Amino acid sequence: MVQLGRYPVGRVTERDFRVAEVPVPDPGPGEVLVRNTYTSVDPGMRLRLRESGPAGYFAGFALNAPLDGIMTVGEVVASEADGFRPGDTVRHASGWREYAVVTAGVPALAGLGTLARIDTSVAAPSRYLGPLGGMGLTAYAGLLDAAELREGDVVWVSAAAGAVGSLAAQIARILGHRVIGSTGSDAKVRHLLDDLSLAAAFNHRRAPVASLLREAAPDGIDVYFDNVGGDHLEAALGALRRGGRIALCGAVSQYEAPGRPLGPANLFQATANDLTLRGFRGSSHLHRLPAMTHDLAGWLADGRLHYREAVFHGLHQAPTALVHMLAGTTTGKTIVRVAAGS
Amino acid sequence: MVQLGRYPVGRVTERDFRVAEVPVPDPGPGEVLVRNTYTSVDPGMRLRLRESGPAGYFAGFALNAPLDGIMTVGEVVASEADGFRPGDTVRHASGWREYAVVTAGVPALAGLGTLARIDTSVAAPSRYLGPLGGMGLTAYAGLLDAAELREGDVVWVSAAAGAVGSLAAQIARILGHRVIGSTGSDAKVRHLLDDLSLAAAFNHRRAPVASLLREAAPDGIDVYFDNVGGDHLEAALGALRRGGRIALCGAVSQYEAPGRPLGPANLFQATANDLTLRGFRGSSHLHRLPAMTHDLAGWLADGRLHYREAVFHGLHQAPTALVHMLAGTTTGKTIVRVAAGS
Repeated sequence: MVQLGRYPVGRVTERDFRVAEVPVPDPGPGEVLVRNTYTSVDPGMRLRLRESGPAGYFAGFALNAPLDGIMTVGEVVASEADGFRPGDTVRHASGWREYAVVTAGVPALAGLGTLARIDTSVAAPSRYLGPLGGMGLTAYAGLLDAAELREGDVVWVSAAAGAVGSLAAQIARILGHRVIGSTGSDAKVRHLLDDLSLAAAFNHRRAPVASLLREAAPDGIDVYFDNVGGDHLEAALGALRRGGRIALCGAVSQYEAPGRPLGPANLFQATANDLTLRGFRGSSHLHRLPAMTHDLAGWLADGRLHYREAVFHGLHQAPTALVHMLAGTTTGKTIVRVAAGS
Repeated sequence: MVQLGRYPVGRVTERDFRVAEVPVPDPGPGEVLVRNTYTSVDPGMRLRLRESGPAGYFAGFALNAPLDGIMTVGEVVASEADGFRPGDTVRHASGWREYAVVTAGVPALAGLGTLARIDTSVAAPSRYLGPLGGMGLTAYAGLLDAAELREGDVVWVSAAAGAVGSLAAQIARILGHRVIGSTGSDAKVRHLLDDLSLAAAFNHRRAPVASLLREAAPDGIDVYFDNVGGDHLEAALGALRRGGRIALCGAVSQYEAPGRPLGPANLFQATANDLTLRGFRGSSHLHRLPAMTHDLAGWLADGRLHYREAVFHGLHQAPTALVHMLAGTTTGKTIVRVAAGS
């Protein structure tokens, strides 16, 4: 399994992690032994590479211990729990390891990571780490609950080539909205336009975000789905029309920033223009899971939802995958294919 | 009339204003001549002492010209407009002058300042600049619409001895909530406890706001009514329980700050704890005006709503009143008694 050897300061490096060989235990009563096949790599993990993460968020990771609370899919190898049998494909939250012993019925990741069978006739297992899992739920609930998406809204999604962003942007597009996506390279801008079929897209490294946004949405926007924070959030506050809404999903620009994170200097725009900023965790909207799974599985099947994975091979690559994702060099959902013996 | 002679940089001073003697014109068709009796002094005016105020907010004041868009009450002296007669007591938005010619039916201050008769049998005219005017509406809509006040919410109101804060704090108290108020002096803390009957109060100058708040609300809060911004807003983000809400009413700590306003460095708490921050202008909630007036007039009459005015005498004192209010040395609603010839 991969463990955290030290808490990184500033940018995460592979050297902050180590690979530990541990014996595979037998499952006890109520437990299941799972051979993990794919494990997730998420931006929010950066906030947990600390002794204590943000209050109310998921707990910080312990050093030199299993990294608990990371979504994973795998196959049941042995079961001492009712309702699970060898061969079942399951989802749970004991990732970044090859074999996991998981107790059935114990909530993890606010319910999202509780051991559950997944339906591989609907989609391949790895999809349950992306559109049919927490990423899909975060995008779906962020638009419908946090941003209270309304007919006619012009929507801006940042980090729109990322795991959640690419889903949020496409869901809004499929629901009939004009969607502007931003990302960090010209190649990814082409991906947003050609593959995700967004109405407009820009590379935030090319010029000040506020001016790029003004060019893409000269009449302003109604909804901003924020994955980035910092200058992106300020640009949104300046561009939102009266009654506009911001879904505060993440702030990846600030996760590795040294010192004091950058709060929006123009927050008064919210008062001036009757704006709402709503923070949310996907896992706080579990009631949306069935409808979300139904909708996104359908859109995946009929081809309207484009889905890309950045797959790293071998569990030992998990730290590298995290480093690359935080640097913005991956496209789509970053996952690790766990190969036994890696 | 009082005019603005230059745009202040940093703290406002009396020298930024000048008194101009201008002839009193006769009202033309559709116009009314009003002798103003009380004129308002509001924190938000500081944002308008600029060539252009925050986008979406009320327009910046012009130099060496009447200061338009300031609430005022007065008596009709002459009328060429249907529905208004000499002797009527009215409210309108042409303040900071002794006589105003106002066109009936022309919207001002997003509808709040449109010329309207007021009912002096319900309350004295100056009350229509406070609890029965924009201040009451801002407090009422801020709690009910922006903060979506719910049964059992613990509520913190900052600048709770101020015009809007004292109303918001008391409305929440009357509606059955535990209310914590903060203010800037020990004398005003006593006012919050003794006169406004709040459950707890603190002087934010005594220690870091976050620690004072933790002392007053050890189990956290559910609603924060923000009149101050800066360190107060950060303290709220740290203290709000899951699903908590912030009504972004004002940020007076930042209005005179040199350079970049301070955005909340811990805004990620909103994501971690499913928090909503909603900015609003009272005037965006005009539909609440009848219910608000009914409720607040009743609570004023039965003594449950304590109301204090800081009255400055003579129009020439208006700049002094503004300077004092922004420095935090006034208590309650700051108004100027306009005396003809002053």
